[in-house]
Amino acid sequence: MQRDKNIFQCRERVVSMVRNQSQGMDADAMEQFMQAAIQEARQGLSEGGIPIGSILVIDGTIVGRGHNRRIQKGSAVLHAEMDCLENAGRLGYHDYRRAILFSTLSPCDMCSGAVLLYKIPTVVIGENQTFQGPEDYLRSRGVELVILNDGECIRMMKDFIAGNPKLWNEDIGEE
Amino acid sequence: MQRDKNIFQCRERVVSMVRNQSQGMDADAMEQFMQAAIQEARQGLSEGGIPIGSILVIDGTIVGRGHNRRIQKGSAVLHAEMDCLENAGRLGYHDYRRAILFSTLSPCDMCSGAVLLYKIPTVVIGENQTFQGPEDYLRSRGVELVILNDGECIRMMKDFIAGNPKLWNEDIGEE
Repeated sequence: MQRDKNIFQCRERVVSMVRNQSQGMDADAMEQFMQAAIQEARQGLSEGGIPIGSILVIDGTIVGRGHNRRIQKGSAVLHAEMDCLENAGRLGYHDYRRAILFSTLSPCDMCSGAVLLYKIPTVVIGENQTFQGPEDYLRSRGVELVILNDGECIRMMKDFIAGNPKLWNEDIGEE
Repeated sequence: MQRDKNIFQCRERVVSMVRNQSQGMDADAMEQFMQAAIQEARQGLSEGGIPIGSILVIDGTIVGRGHNRRIQKGSAVLHAEMDCLENAGRLGYHDYRRAILFSTLSPCDMCSGAVLLYKIPTVVIGENQTFQGPEDYLRSRGVELVILNDGECIRMMKDFIAGNPKLWNEDIGEE
């Protein structure tokens, strides 16, 4: 019973921490938005693409959705986050400053750079176990990162990388 | 005469330094490739766009050209360098590792991130007077930068920014 109480208190602290950090968004809402990003990743996979998805949220509303389109469009720049930002269209400084970017995978150098360019204050990351971008650098530039390490995000990437190592290396600029 | 000789020796040292640093490319070739990037910037301007151009060179051959297409395509991601990388198509690690990216303007956080993602070893920059991206960070990650501060590149940007301050701020994520 004491143990249960401790676990409960611990969970509350985590939820409270997340709420305070992430523009008032609670953990349940965060999980829900991550599901929308996972849906994008699944959509990409169903098109024969790399299963990474992303959404952009402003004031609790999804304003952009995207997924990696390297294969589908023969694209060198349309990682999920870039596709999402592109689909959200031309936004202004005050839009991006209220935005939260969700990505099923830790953003690479390019996508992290886009976050910095537009001064998006918060990035919620599905997982950083199969790949990790420049997270410390993002933090040093004032970006808040929330890392969920969601089991479904990890499984999708592990399966894809195991089956397509060459394509995966191309996507992250590795040999 | 002595002064002329000193100037000559000084120029030789600069050319030699550039040659040693930049994958064997000499200063004249570098100027010539920058002219191709400037041509892209002019093309963008003639389309009603932001006058920034970029080219990608591998083994002395232009393999990609691009210019900023924010206005033309309503794009949030097609800065000149990104457009250039996209137009160069899907390349592999060994291609990018032999590449030199030319840009008429110092690359922003996003475009610098793309350079880091693909491990492009050298970036030749037309100018960094009207805008400066994260140059020190690029250097700290091992990227060689050659900064020309070309008069035509500076003039194009100064004129554009003076006439379109709001649009320019949108392009670099400023208020």
